[in-house]
Amino acid sequence: MHEFKVVARDLKTSARTGLLKLDHGEVRTPCYMPVGTQASVKALSSEDVMACGSEILLANTYHLMLRPGAELLARAGGLHAFMHWEKPILTDSGGFQVFSLADLRQISEDGVRFQSHLDGSPWEMTPESATMLQHQIGADIIMAFDECIPYPSTEKYVEESVDRTARWAERCLAAHRKSGRESRQALYGIVQGSNFPHLREKSAKQLGLLEFPGYAIGGVSVGEPKESIYEVVKYTAPYLPADKPRYLMGVGTPEDLWECVERGMDMFDCVMPTRIARNGTALTRRGGIALKNARYAGDLTSLDPDCSCECCRNYTKAYLRHLFQAEELLVLRLLSLHNLHFMTEVTALIRNAIVENRFGEAKRGFLEEYFGPAGA
Amino acid sequence: MHEFKVVARDLKTSARTGLLKLDHGEVRTPCYMPVGTQASVKALSSEDVMACGSEILLANTYHLMLRPGAELLARAGGLHAFMHWEKPILTDSGGFQVFSLADLRQISEDGVRFQSHLDGSPWEMTPESATMLQHQIGADIIMAFDECIPYPSTEKYVEESVDRTARWAERCLAAHRKSGRESRQALYGIVQGSNFPHLREKSAKQLGLLEFPGYAIGGVSVGEPKESIYEVVKYTAPYLPADKPRYLMGVGTPEDLWECVERGMDMFDCVMPTRIARNGTALTRRGGIALKNARYAGDLTSLDPDCSCECCRNYTKAYLRHLFQAEELLVLRLLSLHNLHFMTEVTALIRNAIVENRFGEAKRGFLEEYFGPAGA
Repeated sequence: MHEFKVVARDLKTSARTGLLKLDHGEVRTPCYMPVGTQASVKALSSEDVMACGSEILLANTYHLMLRPGAELLARAGGLHAFMHWEKPILTDSGGFQVFSLADLRQISEDGVRFQSHLDGSPWEMTPESATMLQHQIGADIIMAFDECIPYPSTEKYVEESVDRTARWAERCLAAHRKSGRESRQALYGIVQGSNFPHLREKSAKQLGLLEFPGYAIGGVSVGEPKESIYEVVKYTAPYLPADKPRYLMGVGTPEDLWECVERGMDMFDCVMPTRIARNGTALTRRGGIALKNARYAGDLTSLDPDCSCECCRNYTKAYLRHLFQAEELLVLRLLSLHNLHFMTEVTALIRNAIVENRFGEAKRGFLEEYFGPAGA
Repeated sequence: MHEFKVVARDLKTSARTGLLKLDHGEVRTPCYMPVGTQASVKALSSEDVMACGSEILLANTYHLMLRPGAELLARAGGLHAFMHWEKPILTDSGGFQVFSLADLRQISEDGVRFQSHLDGSPWEMTPESATMLQHQIGADIIMAFDECIPYPSTEKYVEESVDRTARWAERCLAAHRKSGRESRQALYGIVQGSNFPHLREKSAKQLGLLEFPGYAIGGVSVGEPKESIYEVVKYTAPYLPADKPRYLMGVGTPEDLWECVERGMDMFDCVMPTRIARNGTALTRRGGIALKNARYAGDLTSLDPDCSCECCRNYTKAYLRHLFQAEELLVLRLLSLHNLHFMTEVTALIRNAIVENRFGEAKRGFLEEYFGPAGA
């Protein structure tokens, strides 16, 4: 099942809130998907992720193919059963990882040959194999296999790549239709085109003809300035079907969510919340808290008095800082839990603001508090 | 409050089961205390430790004094509040750590000067200061400051040390009585004497005269053979008051519990369950499972079909092994949780066997299954 309905729209911007119904449950959009790269959201159990309010999580076909292998996942009854996550899952096709992690890549019309970043073993990925792997993994939403090019790239190369990505998308769709799994897994197309507006438009139109049930903007968050991401979203989103979910891959921070929802996006994912947690940083309404800072050594208040997560209910900044200084593993879990909870709270703030038609005001209020009175 | 009552005794051995009532709750003995060295049981939250069935945990005065400092703990409302653990706590006095971790020790009649193992800063610990630090930390049971000597040591040195430990114990008791905290915190004495039966007897008798509410056997598990620990317990326990709790410090494994309960001990602590968890080993009724072993790669059953812990309820060996191979932090928590749960289950088996007067039989059955049919 894949049903998407826009529930409310902001009157002044492209922001919207919706409901996405999938086999494993409903997802309120805008949504933020925690990243469970290797069948685990780092430092958290599936029960923890559930407690953070996450309604869908993301996993990576490339990583899972290498380890533990898609065959095992199929035998386990799919990734849901393997990692004991009963809500929806989205898998990235592996395109991004093949182009960012793997060694000795050779791209042809057929697909990509590369070596595993783990052990140098030789692998091949094609639109058909990426689709089949995702069938074995069994996520509710699967992604077309695309070429994710570096930033910056020449216009000529980007155009060639956009065309190839469209041809690959068509092959993914054909493989998916043939599998008979369309009713259980929805295949989304990925728009590429780097930072060339006319190529983003071209890519969106090429993929639009294929009538995917959802669309992603890919090839962003690959090292370009933040403003450039917002620009790409601004000129690409209008070419994506208005009645289908729009997923911005690999983005982002709390401010990115407000900015990109404003420009019409519905779905997000990023490793940031759990990654900065492992560096001892907590996200709060008043910005980040770096627990290394000695000022927290005697601070017997919670990270955020308004937060209801397990970390804030039970532990103080002084305790968390002590754990971080003493290199106790527990702090990695508690901060990851808090940060993920915070990001789902941000999506809830955004959804409520849209429903109540005060998105602009809510965005200003959030960013002012988040960046401080100086607005920096 | 400190009340101890023996509930049942095995008719053929010195095994007994009892109930220990403390300000923060009741502890059924034999009990196994998870070790929260630095105000954290490694990889677990206090909620996790609670879910393992632990009724009392141990923390270390030496570590807490260095970091985060006993003053902060006092200001936080004690260690219970600081680490959000509402059940009983026992703190070791620091004796063992001063003699095993600290640098440049100088022992005098007054106490010990040493350098912190963390940063080389100079510290001093006396019976009075160790007692006062434990008042600030606020555990339900606190330990006398003893000299924990290496194994092996000469008879002459051990005798001098036993006498000094007795004089120090008397000073701890005087400091504790003066504090007016006797009704809230119980001070236990620690019997030393290395592996000399007549010095263990001497130490037990010296401390017995001081009428502590509980007694520990210290200076074991310091590198001597396992059989030697059992021997020390065998000839020392009879000199400890029969109506008071007997705590065997730093011990041990599942088989150690059966052997030392049989010889009359009630309380145990060890880092083993969480330490081996971090090396990828799970404890089960049928012995240890080393998840590194390739045989578990496709094993879609839980660690132990009879275990009700979160790890066994939700995850398979194949998933746990994948997490371990992929270096995912989650596996450290799940295995720590399982191993601690297992150890509290072992104490429950022992308690039930004593109540039902089948301790010997239950011990044989457990060890046969644990070590396999070969009995090795």
